[in-house]
Amino acid sequence: MLSREDNETLTRTGPGTAMGQLFRSYWIPVLLSEELPERDGPQVRVRILGEDLLAFRDSEGRIGLVEPRCPHRGADLYFGRNEEGGVRCAYHGWKFDVTGQCLDMPTVPPETAQTMCAKARIRAYPTREWGGMVWAYMAELAGGAEPPPLPQMEFALVPGEHRYVSKKLQECNWAQAAEGGIDTAHFSFLHMPVARSEAEFAERALRAVRGYNARTMSQDHVRWMREDPRPRYQVKRHAAGLVLGASRQADPGEHYWRIAQYLMPCHGYTPSATEGQTYHGQSWVPIDDHSCWIFCYSWNPERPLTEQERSSYVTGGAVYPARDANYVPVRNRGNEYLMDRRMQKLENFTGIEGVSEQDAAIQDSQGRIADRTRELLGPTDVAVVHFRRLMLQSAAGVAKGESPPGRDDPAAYLVRGGGTIAPVGEAFDDVMRRRFGDEMGRVVPKDMVSA
Amino acid sequence: MLSREDNETLTRTGPGTAMGQLFRSYWIPVLLSEELPERDGPQVRVRILGEDLLAFRDSEGRIGLVEPRCPHRGADLYFGRNEEGGVRCAYHGWKFDVTGQCLDMPTVPPETAQTMCAKARIRAYPTREWGGMVWAYMAELAGGAEPPPLPQMEFALVPGEHRYVSKKLQECNWAQAAEGGIDTAHFSFLHMPVARSEAEFAERALRAVRGYNARTMSQDHVRWMREDPRPRYQVKRHAAGLVLGASRQADPGEHYWRIAQYLMPCHGYTPSATEGQTYHGQSWVPIDDHSCWIFCYSWNPERPLTEQERSSYVTGGAVYPARDANYVPVRNRGNEYLMDRRMQKLENFTGIEGVSEQDAAIQDSQGRIADRTRELLGPTDVAVVHFRRLMLQSAAGVAKGESPPGRDDPAAYLVRGGGTIAPVGEAFDDVMRRRFGDEMGRVVPKDMVSA
Amino acid sequence: MLSREDNETLTRTGPGTAMGQLFRSYWIPVLLSEELPERDGPQVRVRILGEDLLAFRDSEGRIGLVEPRCPHRGADLYFGRNEEGGVRCAYHGWKFDVTGQCLDMPTVPPETAQTMCAKARIRAYPTREWGGMVWAYMAELAGGAEPPPLPQMEFALVPGEHRYVSKKLQECNWAQAAEGGIDTAHFSFLHMPVARSEAEFAERALRAVRGYNARTMSQDHVRWMREDPRPRYQVKRHAAGLVLGASRQADPGEHYWRIAQYLMPCHGYTPSATEGQTYHGQSWVPIDDHSCWIFCYSWNPERPLTEQERSSYVTGGAVYPARDANYVPVRNRGNEYLMDRRMQKLENFTGIEGVSEQDAAIQDSQGRIADRTRELLGPTDVAVVHFRRLMLQSAAGVAKGESPPGRDDPAAYLVRGGGTIAPVGEAFDDVMRRRFGDEMGRVVPKDMVSA
Repeated sequence: MLSREDNETLTRTGPGTAMGQLFRSYWIPVLLSEELPERDGPQVRVRILGEDLLAFRDSEGRIGLVEPRCPHRGADLYFGRNEEGGVRCAYHGWKFDVTGQCLDMPTVPPETAQTMCAKARIRAYPTREWGGMVWAYMAELAGGAEPPPLPQMEFALVPGEHRYVSKKLQECNWAQAAEGGIDTAHFSFLHMPVARSEAEFAERALRAVRGYNARTMSQDHVRWMREDPRPRYQVKRHAAGLVLGASRQADPGEHYWRIAQYLMPCHGYTPSATEGQTYHGQSWVPIDDHSCWIFCYSWNPERPLTEQERSSYVTGGAVYPARDANYVPVRNRGNEYLMDRRMQKLENFTGIEGVSEQDAAIQDSQGRIADRTRELLGPTDVAVVHFRRLMLQSAAGVAKGESPPGRDDPAAYLVRGGGTIAPVGEAFDDVMRRRFGDEMGRVVPKDMVSA
Repeated sequence: MLSREDNETLTRTGPGTAMGQLFRSYWIPVLLSEELPERDGPQVRVRILGEDLLAFRDSEGRIGLVEPRCPHRGADLYFGRNEEGGVRCAYHGWKFDVTGQCLDMPTVPPETAQTMCAKARIRAYPTREWGGMVWAYMAELAGGAEPPPLPQMEFALVPGEHRYVSKKLQECNWAQAAEGGIDTAHFSFLHMPVARSEAEFAERALRAVRGYNARTMSQDHVRWMREDPRPRYQVKRHAAGLVLGASRQADPGEHYWRIAQYLMPCHGYTPSATEGQTYHGQSWVPIDDHSCWIFCYSWNPERPLTEQERSSYVTGGAVYPARDANYVPVRNRGNEYLMDRRMQKLENFTGIEGVSEQDAAIQDSQGRIADRTRELLGPTDVAVVHFRRLMLQSAAGVAKGESPPGRDDPAAYLVRGGGTIAPVGEAFDDVMRRRFGDEMGRVVPKDMVSA
Repeated sequence: MLSREDNETLTRTGPGTAMGQLFRSYWIPVLLSEELPERDGPQVRVRILGEDLLAFRDSEGRIGLVEPRCPHRGADLYFGRNEEGGVRCAYHGWKFDVTGQCLDMPTVPPETAQTMCAKARIRAYPTREWGGMVWAYMAELAGGAEPPPLPQMEFALVPGEHRYVSKKLQECNWAQAAEGGIDTAHFSFLHMPVARSEAEFAERALRAVRGYNARTMSQDHVRWMREDPRPRYQVKRHAAGLVLGASRQADPGEHYWRIAQYLMPCHGYTPSATEGQTYHGQSWVPIDDHSCWIFCYSWNPERPLTEQERSSYVTGGAVYPARDANYVPVRNRGNEYLMDRRMQKLENFTGIEGVSEQDAAIQDSQGRIADRTRELLGPTDVAVVHFRRLMLQSAAGVAKGESPPGRDDPAAYLVRGGGTIAPVGEAFDDVMRRRFGDEMGRVVPKDMVSA
């Protein structure tokens, strides 16, 4: 439960807000590289952190992320022409490059154009392409200041064939979607099959975890989660965020551990992958305070992704919903996620198809912005409690001029999350060391493949 | 004409408003029974008096009407599963029964679950099924307090085959729709055929009153209403509301009386039925201040309804519009009621098909909330004047702690309205006694059939 | 650049605003005559200057423009019946004529009806039909006061076969649309073809100016505008507004002059017609502050319009977009003007088909109301600077009780705008005299045809 003030602070990310400042202290994903496929190709509208921006790839392949308003008469550069080094306004032909610099003012006499060009600079944010996504650093950089280094997330470091990247629209505030991502307790209900026999359950359990490799998530894992809806949580803070372990009773004498990572300011790794399997992560990036893009990525450090894996990510599986050409899930708020009450009675707990879609449905259902002033938190909510504390403390730190966790420590992002089986009684640190070789889940050099 | 304050008081029914408190002092219809056909079937969203609620029928057939928000993390119980005695939240499995009591908290250790369950109670309103509708009493009942008895409306007392019940959406404030229901003067224009000859008029008059039995409303009745657009009103207050008589010149030496009932807080009986014919009523229940459900019912105390009657109610006739599976009229605000200007020129006064649809069109046209501060009322508006006075006085009384009219007198609802022919000069009380056997329209025991 | 206050003043035209008062000092177009084709035909809704009104043609052909609210109970007279001298309300039959006078109150006893009728007057504005359009004078006229005479615009004076009139919806504030109309500099980019060869350019130049006669706008004219994007402006004020000349380098030793007219409060003539060709004008009439009707007209003083001209105006050419039966452009804000990025790359500067559509796209893109507080104006923006000054000064004058420019001088509207070729160095006054026979573009008597 939060005070009204804290709930506002956690959820508001527009210009001038405390959480907005925190987000603007980091590189964050704003687009997929595939959305700007060609040089001098169509510019696209981007709305991030409540700011309406324009992205374009110039003749040299550089990506601009700029204020879309021509400073001459206020026309929208979206209707302009992306040509030879910049976007030219369609009204009177003023032209701007990826840094926001005005390059040409054809309506102004040559003798005064130079002076006016300097004044006609538009706001532009630095961008980088990294791991199949376009990242931006959305703060104003004082003269000569440099943005921090890019976070060394493993999916961006592995070779392209080892990786899949996409995104999905979610129609609620970023923070409750992120909370759903690190709340690994809900699997026991939200994603659970309904069945009249164990045979039926086993079959449906596999369907329920479509897109996660069979070995990663088997019917046994699903069964353990059904039978123990009260995982015991352990949470540790590290340089770039949180590692969140939750253990459930598995077969006699064993615990099934699911270990998630939360990386500042908005990245989470799922707890699903067991040893050797494909990892998955999500980044919750506010469009505004009522919707967000969830960037999704899957990677296998040891081998290229299989055709079967890619196919399930494209059509809906693991963290990916079935989605349209604009990355809007086919099952969404507007159509009640195609909920089928008969399916809910007989096949699964929600009547909604797909793990990603089930998450979206229940997170959206908390309201456009969840009201955290009227909650009854219990022991399984400890992960969200730690998440909120980390975010609020970091935002307060930035407001005081401090550098927030991980911003200047890109290597701290080189961690993994995943699942494992451990003997009952084994300590969390020992579980981490056995599963990841490190008690924080840091990737040890021998595991790395070259990028 | 009302002051701005009185117009606000009359039309605002949300939590905490004076009129809202008045509505919440009575049982009111909130759903049709047919909307919750089966035990453990799909729960449905209900919006009534500006409150968003969830209705469900449990395993024993009881109906819950509850706040749809799970107190754990605020997920919407609409997405939950209606199973074995309650609705279970889809997020982490908390479960609530029809009284709002939390029954199960699987994420919480058994030793603390009991204490937490008590805190996790959600708001729930008592419900009853009565006359094919689900009624709710939407006030908080202090410990041990009981809601009042159900109003003894005749349609609910007759055997099921004598009755037809449905509802229709109206896209304006409840009060102007109710005013339209008791303003029996408007028939002379709003529902009037246009014709070039008396033969054509006679034919169109019958079409205009489709669904009212031929004997109940004949071309003569329509002709009398055309020829006398200035009915003389007489209004009397009784224990549960108002009886409203309006007389028009009929054939020489006779008056055609149309007598409506208004029953607190939102029920009206039409003035159409002559002796022995089928009666009709409507209940205007605010969804919010900009739209309402009109529950509609028809009953014949003496015989089962005929197939022809039922068929006209299903497809559009009497108080029933043609409507879709969600009870939305086919002719509605969004499509201008399919008004046909050629029909308006040649066939009827509005160019809109159907008495119910014509009412909706003109009532909606007064605005989402009619502005009663700029009116010019005349003698035929006396019914609406009495209605407003009754509602405002009753709301003021409730605010002072008084019990409003009829609330504790369920038998006072056992009245009828209808039409009759009387000799010119006969007093209203005598007309009532001759038509109904009682000067207020109370049903005398010999007329009752057993329920 | 304007201050925030001046930008508000320029763009707000609702009742009680300064600019609203200025508009209400003139006759302005509110409908096309073709929208009220028959006597006693369907009334139509009109929204102008933020006021919701109802227009109807009565049995004698007179046009009423009235407040649509029946003063009895507030029903919308749109649903009423237009019959025998007025509109009769569908609720209780009160009837109103084109002057707003109540003619009949059938629900009120005859003895009091007369007194009540006087009170039941509804607001009505004087109307005139003029040049194929319905004009209204939207100020309250104190007892006995007369509206000013109609502006003597040439398109309204020529015979009907010499004229074509229509309108188009634009989804932004009127003022930025008007600014686009007099800003003749933008042709060099907004309407410019893109081509890989001069032959391709010549062909596309002709397509770009479809609907302007070949002789009026040839590929030479388009080429000159491409090659000189910095026209030199000269602006003169006259009794009814502004004449705005802009000269570009043409073939050696020659200038290509484009001369527009702006006539108070909202009419503009295009600079396209060379000697003997068809003239075009537009009137920007606020629907409200976020959208406007642009009334468009074309006329040839010397000859009837050709079938080819009419056909291009109907289907999209010159100032006319392709549009639907409700005068909504097929290419509009909602579908991004069917912009085609491939066309933008290879065929024209915007990827949008049609001069009118290109104008709409870029003007809409400035926002619903352009923010003029953040502009960088240059020498080619001198026309918009003069326009703003004229409008703001005139509005201030009206607020002080002055009669604004042209209001009482209808003959001052008898002017023309157009294009011509002149030797380099010829003074603007001389250019005007040679092209129009008058230095302000006034039509000299010999040029007039009888109406």
